[in-house]
Amino acid sequence: MTRTLYDLCGRDERLRFSPYCWRVRMALAHKGLDFDTVAWRFEDKQALAFADYDKVPVLCDNDQVITDSFDILRYLDNTYPHAPVLGEGTSFQRVLFFKHFVERSINSALFRLVAMDLLMAIHPDDRAYFRETREARFGARLEEVHDPDGARKQLAMLLAPVRDQLAQTAFLDGEAPSGADYLLFGSLMWAYTVSLETLGEANAPVEAWFQRMLAVHGGVAGQAITIRDLV
Amino acid sequence: MTRTLYDLCGRDERLRFSPYCWRVRMALAHKGLDFDTVAWRFEDKQALAFADYDKVPVLCDNDQVITDSFDILRYLDNTYPHAPVLGEGTSFQRVLFFKHFVERSINSALFRLVAMDLLMAIHPDDRAYFRETREARFGARLEEVHDPDGARKQLAMLLAPVRDQLAQTAFLDGEAPSGADYLLFGSLMWAYTVSLETLGEANAPVEAWFQRMLAVHGGVAGQAITIRDLV
Repeated sequence: MTRTLYDLCGRDERLRFSPYCWRVRMALAHKGLDFDTVAWRFEDKQALAFADYDKVPVLCDNDQVITDSFDILRYLDNTYPHAPVLGEGTSFQRVLFFKHFVERSINSALFRLVAMDLLMAIHPDDRAYFRETREARFGARLEEVHDPDGARKQLAMLLAPVRDQLAQTAFLDGEAPSGADYLLFGSLMWAYTVSLETLGEANAPVEAWFQRMLAVHGGVAGQAITIRDLV
Repeated sequence: MTRTLYDLCGRDERLRFSPYCWRVRMALAHKGLDFDTVAWRFEDKQALAFADYDKVPVLCDNDQVITDSFDILRYLDNTYPHAPVLGEGTSFQRVLFFKHFVERSINSALFRLVAMDLLMAIHPDDRAYFRETREARFGARLEEVHDPDGARKQLAMLLAPVRDQLAQTAFLDGEAPSGADYLLFGSLMWAYTVSLETLGEANAPVEAWFQRMLAVHGGVAGQAITIRDLV
């Protein structure tokens, strides 16, 4: 019985910051499933050839190989149906919307918050690749994309519905965390692991929820190595 | 057996544009529940004194009086549990987030799209009240808040996750419309009934979904009187 997650690492192999890998880590913790990780870097496409894929996360679950973080979450729900993270039917549809909300609206604002921190966090050998692909995506130099104050203003607006939700329940999915929480949390871990930038005062309730999330499932995320631990 | 919805009307009593009333109308249609409406105007607070409330929608379902559109949807699910619109548990939590998304992010952009059209659509006796309350909320004159091009730009960004969702399924909640669809649809009916402004080219898939929504449940929304029908 082996379960292995290919997981993006940074300049220090222990620095794990991929938002898509973090959502998988949290889903595995949610279900109480043990796993090992293989540290992977952007340029190491060969190492994923077996999966016919060029990005992480890739999960190897015994003889199954699953790519794409959301597909992995769905696979985990199908294979280990206790404690569902995405759910089925209308519940699934609604968390699918939330995934789009996180990936489309939140992730691009977060990228602007920590673009240069990300560049410094990744392995020197990966930086040219990172700069080229991200600058093509944003149509601007990373130095211009990086705009923490502008990003905080945008996040104050974009996260308003998240704050409304957290004013009513401790977690997005209710009194205990589930799929929606892991999707947003993964993205915030991305910023938290590589940067000292905060979400800003307007998002204090989101920061408080983030702290609660660091503590769930035995504090698995709270024990992560971050930029604060590296000199 | 009587069921009565107090419903906001405009300068023509047949013009019904409240986003919150439209979500209730669609939920009633979803469940196949007949109802009458009572046309109500902003200044007519006395008419709602029986409900100890000062806004619509108010639903009278036999001897039950329910206020607040989302509470009405929840009441309908509890009282008429066939064909749920909000659902329960995690499904409910996730549509609650979607409600916050619609009310916080989408509605304020839509208001900027049609602010002056709204002013002209409401009854002349209501306009001073409308102007005063909305200008206090936005901290600016309605003439300044009204910015269709700016609103379209904002909606192109804010509705990106909705477009992603509609690229995968015909309705937000899956292959048939449900609660999330009615929440967003109500808001778009608000703009559609009072204005000729469109969402813009970027949101063509959202406009196509809106057309599908006009046709569902026997075309109940498609038959609504709009500004196009009034001279």
